[in-house]
Formats: sequence, structure tokens, C-alpha cells
Amino acid sequence: MTTVEIIAKKRDGGKLSKSEISFFINSYLKGEIADYQMSSLLMAVCIRGMDYEETAWLTEIMLNSGDVIEFPRPDKVYVDKHSTGGVGDKVSIMLAPWAASCGAKVPMLSGRGLGHTGGTLDKLETIPGFRTNLTIDEFRQGVEKVGCIITGQTAEIAPADKRMYALRDVTGTVESIPLICGSILSKKLAAGPRGLVFDVKCGNGAFMKTLDEATNLAKNLTGVSKSLGRNVTALITNMNQPLGRTAGNLMEITEAIQFLRGDYDRDLFEITLDLGIEMLLLASVFKNYDDAKKEMIKNLENGKAYEKFAEMVKFQRGDLEIFEKLARIPKSRNAAIIKSEISGYVQAYDTLGIGRLIVKLGGGREKITDTIDPQAGILFHKKIGEMVKTGEPLAELHSNKTSSLESDTERLKSCILISPDPVGKEKLILKKID
Amino acid sequence: MTTVEIIAKKRDGGKLSKSEISFFINSYLKGEIADYQMSSLLMAVCIRGMDYEETAWLTEIMLNSGDVIEFPRPDKVYVDKHSTGGVGDKVSIMLAPWAASCGAKVPMLSGRGLGHTGGTLDKLETIPGFRTNLTIDEFRQGVEKVGCIITGQTAEIAPADKRMYALRDVTGTVESIPLICGSILSKKLAAGPRGLVFDVKCGNGAFMKTLDEATNLAKNLTGVSKSLGRNVTALITNMNQPLGRTAGNLMEITEAIQFLRGDYDRDLFEITLDLGIEMLLLASVFKNYDDAKKEMIKNLENGKAYEKFAEMVKFQRGDLEIFEKLARIPKSRNAAIIKSEISGYVQAYDTLGIGRLIVKLGGGREKITDTIDPQAGILFHKKIGEMVKTGEPLAELHSNKTSSLESDTERLKSCILISPDPVGKEKLILKKID
Repeated sequence: MTTVEIIAKKRDGGKLSKSEISFFINSYLKGEIADYQMSSLLMAVCIRGMDYEETAWLTEIMLNSGDVIEFPRPDKVYVDKHSTGGVGDKVSIMLAPWAASCGAKVPMLSGRGLGHTGGTLDKLETIPGFRTNLTIDEFRQGVEKVGCIITGQTAEIAPADKRMYALRDVTGTVESIPLICGSILSKKLAAGPRGLVFDVKCGNGAFMKTLDEATNLAKNLTGVSKSLGRNVTALITNMNQPLGRTAGNLMEITEAIQFLRGDYDRDLFEITLDLGIEMLLLASVFKNYDDAKKEMIKNLENGKAYEKFAEMVKFQRGDLEIFEKLARIPKSRNAAIIKSEISGYVQAYDTLGIGRLIVKLGGGREKITDTIDPQAGILFHKKIGEMVKTGEPLAELHSNKTSSLESDTERLKSCILISPDPVGKEKLILKKID
Repeated sequence: MTTVEIIAKKRDGGKLSKSEISFFINSYLKGEIADYQMSSLLMAVCIRGMDYEETAWLTEIMLNSGDVIEFPRPDKVYVDKHSTGGVGDKVSIMLAPWAASCGAKVPMLSGRGLGHTGGTLDKLETIPGFRTNLTIDEFRQGVEKVGCIITGQTAEIAPADKRMYALRDVTGTVESIPLICGSILSKKLAAGPRGLVFDVKCGNGAFMKTLDEATNLAKNLTGVSKSLGRNVTALITNMNQPLGRTAGNLMEITEAIQFLRGDYDRDLFEITLDLGIEMLLLASVFKNYDDAKKEMIKNLENGKAYEKFAEMVKFQRGDLEIFEKLARIPKSRNAAIIKSEISGYVQAYDTLGIGRLIVKLGGGREKITDTIDPQAGILFHKKIGEMVKTGEPLAELHSNKTSSLESDTERLKSCILISPDPVGKEKLILKKID
């Protein structure tokens, strides 16, 4: 089959064979198929879809387009987590060392923020000196020595995804379950984990707005991973409000460090704990839920999770000195406190609006080449269901942009809805798929 | 709206506005939208379609991307014909001068053969010296002076179509009614005709295989043209066998000249005549069918149609000397006669197979850069429904390729099916849409 025939087959709703997908992607990487031909196929996939088997082939071919890291046996112990992205999601930063402190090995390749969702690498880089550009050898050594590493993808990892994602971003072909699956899994599996827990975010701050959409993505991610021989579980978790107390890079790292030192928001604790338990079960470190949970709680309380975190930061050349006293952490030039105008209960967050506001403050990126202001961010005093009195603080905006402070503050205020009547708390973990 | 938002709107089945289509095409021509973004949108249009109004906007924007020729008033008299392409279709070559000899003015911009369909320019270029690269000024002068001109598109005509067609050809986005409409009409209307008759070919040698498909294309072509203020009619005509007695460039020109000199195949005569009558009616040269028909037949019989053809050839610097005696026309090195192995009736042609065989013989192009062998071609002795006796010639293959003569001859034989039982003649004009 020729390039055009393969495109036309998918255009007409046909099922591509493994050899057709392989020919297309490999010819693309060799420069024998042009960007305009790839984008035409990507659009056809977007509209016509791919069945389960095609998605698995696509993922495997993208995965094998670059280096795939292998760890020594017993390799079951190597596990990772992937989140589909939200606002205030700093879970990886606590989870990797916490699970590692309980016996798992966590080889985590992470990404940068784009659009309204934050990125773990941007957050970690607010720790002075922290390196997110480890070589594959350093990464492998760190995982063996420390038990967990969080670093960026290298050029050797899933080059097909790099080229295809850059193209999807500018050709309206991001929103496609099979392409999302191929992209996520080719990167994640290349880092070498045998087990993987997916945190599929669902709600008004997530890519998946409804439980049906989230379930569909979770089933595709778990199904394809299993067909590639990995042990996986997916939790669908609530993203109808920012996760934890903060959103913004330096503020989130500070919150993560406080968490590991025992001072945490209950929602963030429960989601991180549950994801950690799933990792320990997938890694066969524990056989049952309760044992895993007991060990997790023990290692948070006795400081071993924090110690593992400090060990990881040290291995990656980071310096935690500024975090020893809150007063030493650099602050933004401006801060504005949003106060409630009525007595009542927090009813809803416009979480996407919060995410976009953080980008506007300089805490996120519109384009991948934008730089990040680490101090820009928002602190949330009240979460959905919590009572608030007239004049009580709802949130704090931190910004280095003086000129737009007033309009930014108004914008933040409009993102938090207060009801005079009591409001129930949101369910945290909506569904488990394994 | 941004580029990506426009693409995503069509991807999700939305209707684009005139300003969105205009922004997209004009930004593309300015180099601000990349090929990979255009091909992504083209694929979305291919799958999701465009409604009637969007197609008209698309056509108008593509038309106005370059020069649009205008002729003096009364401009109604300027009419043209467009064929959707088939095998042995030399109609334009007789039709333009024939209709011009009856009072129409025919500004015809034509194309080259690609794939299994032949091209009028390739055929005309087998006349020694014939120029198909007239400037727009020469074209306009020729139409005024002679009454008809057939030449190639210049770079000033519909540049949007040139760029978009080149992309569609390699991205699996050729097969789309709105894109086909935009492409055909933007080129044809730029040449300045106020009236246009469409010869929509239907059958196993045409792009439209079924009457439903052909009707759909014809309705789109006529509807969009009318909304752009043109007088139009479409005839859906039979392409289940090659048109006339020959296929191949020099052989077809020879047939066309013989036709104009009064020696013609009945089917070719009837289709050309009917298209000519439609042109004269659209041009308001005649008010009713019978008067137009009478004049057409008169001017073929009295030689005025041929005189007009000779005048056009002379204006375009062609020399008809070699066509004065059949013996002077250069012949291919090899000729092979296919004879019937049984007595019976011609039942069917594999017309696509014939078209592809001509490409293989060198008489057509696989790629637009291929060169043409003018002498390669096939002469058909028997058409569908005609009786043939054992050993009687069915067709003659003319080729300069000695090495594959035997296999090419076998291939030709396999394209003509003989039935021992009588077979009815095919209907020539299947439908008229106006």
C-alpha cells in the first residue's frame, strides 16, 4: 500500500493493519512521509477513530521508535503513575518518593505545563539547582540508588511522539482517544515501568469533562497497556476544583514539601495515598490493600517519605535550603486577598478559569517556548462544601504583574461561586478501572 | 478564530463561515498557514463535507485568489464546457470550434492528463507547433478574433487551487464533492465564461461510477455555479467504454480532425452535438433546441466547424500539414491487432483498465512530471452492442515499447468482454440537470 492509499483507507473508516501503521510512522521519521501527509492521517484518525487493536499497534510502534529502558529482574517492582492533567496537581512530587519509601521503584519521566494544566518539571525546577535533564544513564542509576527519579524525557525517548505531538498541537488533532493513548503510553512505557497507575482527571478543570469520557479514556489506557504486557489500574478522580491548597509552581512545591513533612490538605492526602497503594499492589510489594495502606501511612508519619524525597532532590542536585523556613521562600511582588461578600458555602470553582488565570499571571505557558514565573500562583483558603463568613478570605493571588493586578483579582473572584445554602463535599475518587 | 479553532470546528462537523474560509485560504497563500494545517482541514472537509453555501463560498474565494478574466458586453455569448474526465474524451477539440462557428465565444482553459484520464492540452500539443501556453492577453485576443481558444492555465489563474490540488493529490483528499467543485469551478470561471455546460462522466472509466454519485456532483456543480451568477447545465454521459474510436494523444487528434471533416463515430457525434446545443442555448445564440441543432449540423456539414478549428490552430501557431494525408501522420514502431476468439457481441469494456494501459504504453502520466509518447494509443474497431465474428479485429494497440508488446496486447484483450448472445447498446446521455 502507498502512503495515499493508507490515508484514504482511514479516511473511509477502514482499519489499518500493524504493518501499515508501522510503515507510515517509520517512513515519517525517516523523512519519506511529509508533515502534511501525517497531519492528514491524524485528522482521519481523529474523526474515524481507531479500534482497540489498532491503538495498541500504534502505541507499540511509537514506543519502539526510540530507546526503551529496561531494568533488572524482578522488574515488577518498577512502577509509575500518570495523570491526564489538571490544576494544582502536584501529586507526583509526593507520590514518587512516598511509594519508593515503601519499597517500590519509580522511574518517572515527566513533562512541562502547557495551556491550563501545570507540569511537574516546572514545579521541581523551582527548587534551586534541581536538574530535570538527566541522561538515561543517570536516570537508571538514580532509580536503582534512590528508588525514585523524576526527570524530563530525553531525545532518545519516543521520538515519534515528539514529532507527532508537535504536529497535532497545531493541526486540531489533539482531541482523539487513540492518539492520546499512543502519546501517553509510548512516553510512559519507554521509561521502563512494568506497572502503571493512571490518574484520569474528570471535571471542569480536566480534559475529560464527564465521567463517560473519562471512563472511555481510562479503559483505552488500561486495555492497551495490558495488551502490551503491563500491570495497570486507573483511578478516575475529581477535577472540579484545584487539587490541594495551591496552584502555581513554587507554591505547589512548597505545599508538596509541607505535605511530606506532615502538614497536608485532606483531599490531596487521600488521592495521593490511594494512588500510592495501587502502585505498591501493582509492584507486588504488598499483596493486599490494607497492608499497603498501613505502610504508606507509617512512612509518611515517620518521615521516611520526606527522607526519600530529600534523597531524590540531592541526587538531582537540588538544594532544599530555602524551604527550611517559610520566610526564606521568595515571594511575588504583589499579593491580593479575595474575601467572601456573603456568608455561605463554596459551591463551585471554575477550575479551567483558574488554570487560565495562572497562565496569564506567568505561571504557565500558552506556547511551549514561553518562560515560567515561579512565584505566580494562587492559594485557596476554602474548598467546595466549606463554610465561609462575610469578609473571610477565600483565596490569595500572587503575581509579579502590577499593571493588571486589579483585573486579575476580579477574574479570580469570578472563578469561585458561593451559595448561601449548605453544599455537599465533592466525591474524590469517582471510579476505579482495572 | 485561530487556525486550529477553524480546523477543529470542521473536524467536529461544524459549518465554516465565509470569513473563516477566506481567512484560512488567504493566510495559506500568504504562507501564514502551513501545508500540514491545510491538509488537516482538507481531510476534515473530505470526511465531514461542506454544505451548499460553504461550497459556494469556498469556490468564490478560490476563484478570487487570482486573476478573473472579463470579456466585453454582451458577455452572455461567452460559454465553455467542462468534462469530469474519461478515456478517449476528445470532445473539447471539436466542440469549441464547432460551437464558435455557430456564434458562441469559447474561452477554454484546459488541463493535462493525469492517471487514467487524458488531457486536452496533451492531445493538442501533438499538432506540430501548437502553443498551449498563451498569455492572458493572447488568450483574450484569440477568443475575440477567432471565437475560440483552448490553452493552459497561467500562473495568475486560481493559485489557491494550484496549491490545494497539489496537496490533495498526495494527502488522500481528492475524493470530496465540495473540494472537487471548488477546484473545477475556480479554474473554469476564472477564464471568463458566463455560461458553462458540464459533461459529468459516469461509468467504469469515470471518477463517478454510479448515476447517484454523478447526479450529486452535477447538482453541486450547477447549484454552486448558479449561486455565483452563471448560466449552467449539466449532462451526465456514459463512460462505460472509451469515447469514439481512439484513445491516445495523436490518434485522438487525428480522430477529432476526421470528425470535423465529416467522418465520425456516431456516439461521439451525438454527445458533442448535444453539448454544443446546450452551449448555444446558454449563450443565447439560439432560443430553442431545434434551431440550435439545425445550425450545428449545418456548420459541421458545410465545413465551417472545421474552418474555425483550422483558424484556432493557426492562431495558436499549430501546423495541420501532417494531417492532410493519413500516411503522413507518424506511426508507432509497433502495432498489434486484437482479434475476437468467438463470434458474438461486445458486452463490456474495462474502461479504467484501458486508461491505465495507455498510461503504461506512455500515452498518459502517473506523475504530473512524466512525459507523453504522442503515438501510443489504442484504436477500437467494435463498441458495446456491435457484432463481431471469430477472427475479426476488435482493437489495435500502438506502442513504441517493443519489450512488453506481448503482455500489453494480452492486457488489452482482457479489457474487452465478448458475449455469444446479443447485447443492447448503451444509453449515451443518462440525465440532464439544469
